[in-house]
Formats: sequence, structure tokens, C-alpha cells
Amino acid sequence: MIISTKRGTPQAEIQKIIAGFEAQGLSVTLIRGTDYNVFGIVGDTTKVNEKQVAANPWVESVTRVSAPYKKANRLFHEADTIVDVAGVRIGGKEKICVIGGPCSVECESQVVEIAQAVKAAGGAMLRGGAYKPRTSPYAFQGLGTEGILDLVRAREATGLPIVSELMSEDKIEEFEQYVDLVQIGARNMQNFPLLKAVGKMHKPVLLKRGLANTIEEWIMSAEYIMAGGNENVIFCERGIRTFEPYTRNTLDLSVIPIIKEKTHLPIIIDPSHATGNWRYVEAMSLAAVAAGADGLIIEVHNDPQNAWSDGAQSLRPDKFRQVIDKCRAIAHVVGRDL
Amino acid sequence: MIISTKRGTPQAEIQKIIAGFEAQGLSVTLIRGTDYNVFGIVGDTTKVNEKQVAANPWVESVTRVSAPYKKANRLFHEADTIVDVAGVRIGGKEKICVIGGPCSVECESQVVEIAQAVKAAGGAMLRGGAYKPRTSPYAFQGLGTEGILDLVRAREATGLPIVSELMSEDKIEEFEQYVDLVQIGARNMQNFPLLKAVGKMHKPVLLKRGLANTIEEWIMSAEYIMAGGNENVIFCERGIRTFEPYTRNTLDLSVIPIIKEKTHLPIIIDPSHATGNWRYVEAMSLAAVAAGADGLIIEVHNDPQNAWSDGAQSLRPDKFRQVIDKCRAIAHVVGRDL
Amino acid sequence: MIISTKRGTPQAEIQKIIAGFEAQGLSVTLIRGTDYNVFGIVGDTTKVNEKQVAANPWVESVTRVSAPYKKANRLFHEADTIVDVAGVRIGGKEKICVIGGPCSVECESQVVEIAQAVKAAGGAMLRGGAYKPRTSPYAFQGLGTEGILDLVRAREATGLPIVSELMSEDKIEEFEQYVDLVQIGARNMQNFPLLKAVGKMHKPVLLKRGLANTIEEWIMSAEYIMAGGNENVIFCERGIRTFEPYTRNTLDLSVIPIIKEKTHLPIIIDPSHATGNWRYVEAMSLAAVAAGADGLIIEVHNDPQNAWSDGAQSLRPDKFRQVIDKCRAIAHVVGRDL
Amino acid sequence: MIISTKRGTPQAEIQKIIAGFEAQGLSVTLIRGTDYNVFGIVGDTTKVNEKQVAANPWVESVTRVSAPYKKANRLFHEADTIVDVAGVRIGGKEKICVIGGPCSVECESQVVEIAQAVKAAGGAMLRGGAYKPRTSPYAFQGLGTEGILDLVRAREATGLPIVSELMSEDKIEEFEQYVDLVQIGARNMQNFPLLKAVGKMHKPVLLKRGLANTIEEWIMSAEYIMAGGNENVIFCERGIRTFEPYTRNTLDLSVIPIIKEKTHLPIIIDPSHATGNWRYVEAMSLAAVAAGADGLIIEVHNDPQNAWSDGAQSLRPDKFRQVIDKCRAIAHVVGRDL
Repeated sequence: MIISTKRGTPQAEIQKIIAGFEAQGLSVTLIRGTDYNVFGIVGDTTKVNEKQVAANPWVESVTRVSAPYKKANRLFHEADTIVDVAGVRIGGKEKICVIGGPCSVECESQVVEIAQAVKAAGGAMLRGGAYKPRTSPYAFQGLGTEGILDLVRAREATGLPIVSELMSEDKIEEFEQYVDLVQIGARNMQNFPLLKAVGKMHKPVLLKRGLANTIEEWIMSAEYIMAGGNENVIFCERGIRTFEPYTRNTLDLSVIPIIKEKTHLPIIIDPSHATGNWRYVEAMSLAAVAAGADGLIIEVHNDPQNAWSDGAQSLRPDKFRQVIDKCRAIAHVVGRDL
Repeated sequence: MIISTKRGTPQAEIQKIIAGFEAQGLSVTLIRGTDYNVFGIVGDTTKVNEKQVAANPWVESVTRVSAPYKKANRLFHEADTIVDVAGVRIGGKEKICVIGGPCSVECESQVVEIAQAVKAAGGAMLRGGAYKPRTSPYAFQGLGTEGILDLVRAREATGLPIVSELMSEDKIEEFEQYVDLVQIGARNMQNFPLLKAVGKMHKPVLLKRGLANTIEEWIMSAEYIMAGGNENVIFCERGIRTFEPYTRNTLDLSVIPIIKEKTHLPIIIDPSHATGNWRYVEAMSLAAVAAGADGLIIEVHNDPQNAWSDGAQSLRPDKFRQVIDKCRAIAHVVGRDL
Repeated sequence: MIISTKRGTPQAEIQKIIAGFEAQGLSVTLIRGTDYNVFGIVGDTTKVNEKQVAANPWVESVTRVSAPYKKANRLFHEADTIVDVAGVRIGGKEKICVIGGPCSVECESQVVEIAQAVKAAGGAMLRGGAYKPRTSPYAFQGLGTEGILDLVRAREATGLPIVSELMSEDKIEEFEQYVDLVQIGARNMQNFPLLKAVGKMHKPVLLKRGLANTIEEWIMSAEYIMAGGNENVIFCERGIRTFEPYTRNTLDLSVIPIIKEKTHLPIIIDPSHATGNWRYVEAMSLAAVAAGADGLIIEVHNDPQNAWSDGAQSLRPDKFRQVIDKCRAIAHVVGRDL
Repeated sequence: MIISTKRGTPQAEIQKIIAGFEAQGLSVTLIRGTDYNVFGIVGDTTKVNEKQVAANPWVESVTRVSAPYKKANRLFHEADTIVDVAGVRIGGKEKICVIGGPCSVECESQVVEIAQAVKAAGGAMLRGGAYKPRTSPYAFQGLGTEGILDLVRAREATGLPIVSELMSEDKIEEFEQYVDLVQIGARNMQNFPLLKAVGKMHKPVLLKRGLANTIEEWIMSAEYIMAGGNENVIFCERGIRTFEPYTRNTLDLSVIPIIKEKTHLPIIIDPSHATGNWRYVEAMSLAAVAAGADGLIIEVHNDPQNAWSDGAQSLRPDKFRQVIDKCRAIAHVVGRDL
């Protein structure tokens, strides 16, 4: 940690700052500049409160050199973590995992039919929303428990593990019992009580990036889950909010090499929510695999025009199969299988 | 609602689209253009699912003309809503309400002492965090129930109503019992289960704007609370996330005239979290009052350098009093009192 | 174009609005709603001034249905445009074009040596900045004409066409004489006098997207150049500005399918400026080719640590060759060559 | 300047880095940490190329402690600079300067009539665009020289100094001869050849903030002008681009205390372009004056519905007078006059 103080800071204040850090067991080196003094603080600074330091009126700036995350940090865990979701392994050099399914579960026959199509096309897992975060209180809010049970029946029919979004601590038991991969949605990426609760679960977690969250904040949210004891976290990029109106969000694929460099955890991409338009899903899927993603999560619907939510971004099963086939060819180029 | 279809859309598809809307009791007018056809849909379109419409591959664009909110909409409720918080009235032409207090409750004596200073300076309400949303799992997470009880003692000592952040449905009963104004933080603005739960409470709600949420989404979150039966919602702008690093967030004061135009609810401003720097709090407080805000929520600490969180953005009590005095003079110019 | 008017707009005002449009040769259809009236305007609306319409206090909203661009619009020009840069063809199903070279030209021997390495690695064109847009007036501003002449010598030595950034109308003649592909940088994407001047040139133009410009504005800047008579425009995405600090900019690869859908012009990607970090260039290059880009522009330097600008994002020649080889394999998957 | 190197950096590399800085006359202090080494570089670092330093593969991060600007820096120039525009003084404790006028000059009688209304209302200067930056090549581009001459006639009729936007170096002589305050528009904030050219002019410059430029980049653009010899720069905030669609841009008023803290130059606010809506101009004008702005630039039109550009954001003269009167009352509260 590096701290700079303003020109004219009294000697006594400088001594007080140094003493404060030394009292926390840290060692301090002072560099005197022309217009500023700079302190280098060495030791375990993860518990130092940057904002408290910045509250000192003589302090000009505070810069953290070490990353604030530990358990997720590649620096302390060199090997890739491979997350096992009911037998499907994600990460490292494992097969690229394609997850398909409807935005919302609508009824048993719909989700079973789509699950069969997802499996036939080469998908490895089934997605489906039973609890839906909707901007409007007047919009369809999901089938709830009934939707979860429909997914379970689709798993029984196909063998595909299931992923669904958990929105509330109330449903932890239900998800622990029925769901294979617990999704934390973008709007809950910094719902800290929920992250803590999920950290106590025994199921792996798919952690979506928030609409306007930095990569560092995203890793810190994984750190929350891991600090609770659940180290099976998979990152999922789904686009960030920018000024651009032609897409629903701006898909940030540069997170793939960055997450792989900074952490040891797997990362998958959601091109459907990112673009909001099925016409752009294929191009972004191929790009994600080429960039090194460990998987994709794609919306698939047998009748997009009559989907209860997000039909505009859903692929039909035949198109989904084409996308998978092309992704497989790309995967081979980058030394992976699918 | 206005829908446009692509050049070359078959006549049969156009008829199907029209029939679909008419089946929902809506009336449809078709405008034929050179390159596009446009449909105007008239009637109660709040339940029409825009994304389902957009899923039709012949549809080029969908534009909503009517606002998607009803209960919060000024169009259907011309008079200003005045929210009563344990006797303190906010909104309309009522006195401008200044809320002060520490970011985090640290102990009873701290919060009582600050509460007395807030009251002496002219503050109308006391803020204090007992449950803290922190980016890092290793940072101080708040005193919890103990912090709420400390706030209650500060209320007893001063008579000031108290506002604190609710982060989880688990604590609804505690907040219903002890807290006068229930704050929903920026990170929970779209935590829909929490919004629904708060909609059933009997205490007014302070709804902060999310880091990257549009004004329309913010109003829709108020609509969630109001749809549940709790119509006492106060908006609170606390800055949005942009590319600018010199401030913690970018304070968007244009929301004041916009919220007043589109809704009938009160709005207050949080200059402390917005700027992240006590040096800019006075200027932004004066600006907010000049722009028509119904109140301010300002961090006040008796010893900012040793605050457990966010000391850098806290005012000392004497500075807080100066800010209030200047704000009062501004208030008089815009026809309000403080 | 769709216009909605407020509830309570007097009949006379509505008649006046209709008459105004009819006077411009447009036909108007009125749809009466409960809370709003909506007008559909049909005809050539490219010259209608939206803001003037919106200035009418009775007008609630103005929505353009047709795209405001014509010459760049795929709707009126179905075939892909292929741009010929001194014999190198870009666009359509042509070979993917990889442009390499230093951020700044430093001297003749440097640029000749790099050009030879670029060619040997499979690069099709040479880039090099002679006029540099620098945030600081105290930073190196480029070699100017001397740098352009060094590029010319590198072209003579290798046969590679050269691309360089034009920052001022003053240098149009120099660029017309010496440069094969005239780059308009991100900061000049809306320098309209420069766009008009370039529209009169006889050399193709590489139009970078502005830091915070929408895709529509970007296409409109191409339209400026094309309206001047120069229809050889190549788009170049180089990242947009967001809140994320881990990358220099956020590379938006979804522009590739969008530009190809909305326009008939080629698009290439600059992964070096987008990420600002050579470690992420390979992943983003592969992703760009997989997503359908017509080319790449990559910074290559023989001694990045001593580069005069942007060394951190430059590849060494051997790494550049590896990237090209992997991109070629990806290109084959998507039906292209390189 | 602070540099950190990666864990495992060889001793020889560390020595090389130190030697490199010492060769530039800088002194270096090394702080050894557990996972990183940190170097403090002391001396005049304005010429050190951060990106070249970051190009060293052993370097983890580079942080600048001193601001990169000198001439604009309050640290080296404590007193407020007051800029004199043909007798109107802006900055320090001078009267708040309100500039009014049409977006575009349309004809002599229009601009003379508006100028008279601006003067009668209490405005101190006249604005009017003769060269207009327009997104579309098909939109009205301004009257050019004829528009400048119309402004000159309005100045003769009223005595108000005139401000107009310069878009191209070609027109420098015309502006030097006729215009009192030379505006550099948002889209040209980083048009460096234009900034250099304006740095040689003898007229004060109004420097608008770019759509997505940081405060630091904005100050650096002022530094470009000042480094050329023209120290009469006035900043103008006109809103930044964010995700919010209810306003044209997001007005960032926190720049007022920040610009006053970091620099000694005046700053004025443009609420018309920022909000894009005349209904929000009054609130934002009052807020700007309350926050300490040195002036306002407001669009005024005698017939907004028939304005050739930006009518939706223009005030009628009577409304403009009301805004000025209220701003005057606010100004008195903050110790200024108007």
C-alpha cells in the first residue's frame, strides 16, 4: 500500500501516520519528494481500511499494490480450479461446457422438450429461470417452486445437470436439494447476505457480473463465497451497461484472459443476455470460445415468439446446434474440446 | 406502444401481429411506410411484454409511449405526496429535511454524541449503518442488532427519527419494530424479493438509486414497493458510476426536476456517498437544495480520521452546521424553509 | 418517424403539427390513445430536424424508425463493399487483413526492421504513427513529415501498403501523396471538418470509433465521408470508455455482427489500444476473427520496453507471428483465409 | 511516481530499472514487500513516459503521484485567475457571468433581437453558433462567416461580447478578428492541433469538457492551450455521456469544487446542452450557481419551435430573465453578485 501526503504536512503528522501503521505490525518506508511525501507500507495490508486512511486531511492519495483478494488469487493458487457440477467438469483444459435452455421455465412439457433438444445438440447442462428478476412488478415473475420441479423432471428425462437463479436466502434449502449449479444473477452480485448464505451451500455457484461492476469487485464477490467455505465458483460475464443502445449490454470479452490471469477459477460467457438479440449470439459465442472461455450459457427456446420472457434473444434448437458445431471447431483450434 | 416491422414483411405476418394485439383487447392502427410498416397500439399496454413482441423476427423495433409505471406516475396523481417519518414531513412545500449521522454505528456513546450534534446543528433525522454492504468480506460488516439498538438509544436521547439500511428480508421484523425510515441501498435497488417484502411494511422507505440504474428503472423499483401496498417512498440519489476517477461516483442532480415531473414522490440527495470526499459535500448540498431537493442525507462524524468506515467523506459537526446554515439561506430563495 | 403529443394537447396544435409535416411533403397518420396521441410520419424523413420537432412544448417524444444513414446503409446496398488499399482487398470474403507496426515511428531503421518482421509474420499492411494525439503537451508528439517519409521507405523495402493517422486538414496533401490508408483516430471521429476534407480524398479511410460514440454516430461519421464522394471507408473498433480500470478501454466485439448487418462496409479490430496490454492481445485477436472481423490492427515493436509510446501494448515480432498463425486457423473455421 | 514490480523479478532487472531512472536525474527509493517491490521516484517526473515504464514485463503497476499539469495547477498558482473577455471579467469573486443566445445564428435580425433580449434580462455576453458540429452530414451546418458577421452586428447593437465555436484551424484568423471568446466544443476537446493553434491566439478560450473525458484530461487540454502561451482559459462543463436516456447528457456539477481546488481557472456551466430540455434548465442553473460556478451559458431563442437547431433546450427571453433573477438571489447567498 502506498500513501502520499500533501505538501506542507507537519512533521508531527507524518510521525503519527507512521506510528499508526507500525502499531498494526506493518513496516513503513518514507520517500520524501519535492511536492509530496510518499509512504510505502509493507506487510499484510488486507485489513487496512483504505477509506479510514484517506480520511486524514493530510493524506492526498492511497493506492493498493497487492490485490485485495486471497482465496481467488492466482498468485497463491497456481493451478486451474476445475469445478464439478454433478459430473460435468468445467475449467482448466476440460471440455468447453455449453449450457442451454429457456429464459423462463413455462411448464414441464416445454422445459423437457427444450432439454432434449439441448442434449441432442451437444449441450452439457440445462438452464431455466424459475424465479425471475423483472424490472416491472407487473411482469411475469417466474413459476417458483413449480418451475424448479419442472427442471428436475427435465434432468430426470435427459441426465443434464440443471442451473437456475437463486434470488433470496429463503430458497436456499430448495436449491440445495434440487439445483446442481446455483446462479447468482447480475443484480445480486453485491447482495452480500445472499453471497454469505451461498458460501455455506454445498453446490457450486455461477456468479454473474453486475451491470456496472468492475472485475475487481466481481472477484471480491467470489471471495465472499469462498470465504464462507464454498470454493466452487464459476464466473459468468453477461455484458455491462454502457451508453450504446444497439445492444442490451456491452459484452466485455477481455475479462476472459484477465480472470484467467488474476484468478484460478473458470469463466463462462452469456452472449444472449449480453447482446439481447439472437442474431448476434453466434458471433459472440465463437468469439468467447476463441478467447479462451470455459463455457457458454445460451438461451434456447422451441418457440421464441411465444416465450414468456426474452424471446428476442433465444435461439431455436436447430440454430443452437449449428452454433455448438462451429464452437467445437473453434475449440479445437485453441486446444480444447466441446 | 409503437411497433415497426421490416421491409418485406408478408401480409399474413402483419395480419397475425394485428390479431395478436386485438386478442388482448387493444386497438391497432397500421401506418404503411416506404421501408417499414408501423403499428400504433392503443389501450392499457402495461401488461404487454415488449420482449415477446420483439422476438418476432419481422419486428424491427418496439417503443413504449406511455410510462410503464402507474402508482408513482404524476400523470395519475397530480398532488405532491408528503411522506411522514415519525412526525417529520418530507416533500411538497414542507421544510427541507436534513438527515445526518455516521456511516457506521460504532457504539452507543458515539452515535448518541453525534445525534446530539446533528440535532444542535439543525438536522431533522439521524442516519447510521448497522448492517453494512462492503465490497470485501474481510471489512467491518456493521454491528447488526446492537447497532440498531444504539440508534434507538440515540433517538430516545434526542427525539430524532432514525434511518438505517435494511439488507435482508430476515431483518424485516427488527426494522419494523425499531427503525423509522427503512433505507434500501444502491446495491439492492433491484433486489426484487426485498422490494416486495418492504412493500408490505408499515414504515416509509428511502430508496437509493442503483449505481448504474436509469431513472425509469428506479421509478419501477418504487412501483414494486407501492404495488405491495406501501406508498411512502422517498427517492435518494447518491451518484452513478461513470468513467471519472476524481469522484467516487458522479452525482446526477438533474434527477431532481425529472423525478418531480414524472412522479409525485419526494427526493433527497446524498452528497457524501456521491462525491466520496467531504471537501465537495458543501457545494453539492447547496446545489441540491437550489435544484429543488426535498432533503439531504449527509455523513457526520465527530472523529472522521478514526471512523470505522467512510471517514473521508464525513463532515465534522461544526462543518455540518455551517452547511445547514447555508442551505437554509438557499432554501429561502427557492421558497422553502429548513 | 413517430411523434407523440401530451395529454390535453389542443386540437388546433395537433392540426398545426400535421400541417407542418404535410408542408414538407410527408404524409401523416394520427393514432388517438387514452393518454397520448401518436403521429406516424411517412416519406423521406432524413431531413426532418428531430430536435426542432421536440422543441414543440406539446410534443412528448420523437422516435426515428428509419436509420438516418443512406450511403452506408445495407438496406440500399446489399452486397459487401470491398475496399482496395494499394492492392490489398479488405471486406466480403477476402482474406483477413492483419496490419502490424509500431505505435509511433521512431526512425527509419526501426520502422524498416519492424516492417520486415511484420511481412515475414504474414502481415498485409504496415501501421505507424507520425502525428500522435497525446493527452499531455509535454509528451512526444510524433516525427511528423519525417515519420511519414520513414514509412514510405519501409513500404519501398517491403511492398507493404502503409496506414497512418491524419490529425489535421493541413496535412491532407501529404497524406494524399504518401499514405495508402488514411486513419481517422478515435478523438477525431466527430471532427466534422476533417471528415468532410477526407471525403474529398482519393485514398481509403480507416475510421476509428470514438471513445464514447454510439454505433449509429459512428456510421453517421462514415456517412459524412461517403457523402463527400469517398466511399472507401473501413470501420475500426478500438474499445470504448467504461468504468472498468483493468483495461485501457472495453473492447466491444458485438459491433462486428452489427456493422455487418446495418452497413455494407468492412470492419477491423484494434486489440492493442482496446486492452492497453500486450498480454490480452492474442485472446482478443482470436475472438475478433471468430466473430467475423475483416482484419486486425496490432501494435508490433522490436523493443517494446524502449518504445517511445505504448510499449506496454506492443507485441514482439515472434509473438505477432504466433498470433497470426492462430488467427489463420480460426479464419478457416469461419470460412475465411488469412 | 510509484512503480511496483512483480514477485520474482530478478535482482539484475531491479538494478536496471533503478539505473534507468537515475540516468534521467531522478532519485529512486526501493521498498521491498512480501509479494511485490515498490519504487518511489522523486524529481520532475512530468517527462517520464508512464507507458514506456509499464512496457517492462516485470513492472506490475505505475502510479503518478504528482498531477501531470503545471500551468493550470493551483499548487503553483494560488490566486484565482480572472479572465477578461472584452471587459467582462470572469472568475475569482467577480460577478457571475451569464451568457445567452441561440444555438445557431439564423440571420441578422434574429440574433440582434435575441441579443437585445439577453442584455435586457441581465445577460453579460452573447453566444451563437456559426459553425455547427452536427452528427448528420444532411443537417444544417451553420451560416459560417455570414453567421460570425451577424454576431458582430449584434455586438454593435448591444455592446455584448460574443462567443462562438471554432471547429477548424482554417478559421483562426476570422475568430481572432471578430470573436471575443473562442469556444472549443466538446467534440474537439482533444483535437490537439486545434488546441495548439488556439494556444497562439490572443483571445480567451472557452474549453468545453468532452463527452467522455475525465477531469484530468480536461485540465491537460487547458494545459495544451496554456503551454502555447494563451493562459486565458475558462472551463465549461456541458454534461458527460452515461447510460441514462432521460437526459441528453449527465450534468456533473461536482466538477465545480474540483476544478476550483485543482486549478486556478474559472469554470462555467452549460445546463442547456447537458439536459437537452428547457424544462430542466432553471433547476440546473440555480444548482450551478449554488455550487460556486463563475458563470452560465444558456440557450435563448425568441421562437424555440422554429429554431434551426436545439429548440427543445432553449429558453424564451422572459423565462431566461426569470432564471437570471433567481440565480442572482442564489449568488448573493454564496457571496457573489450577478
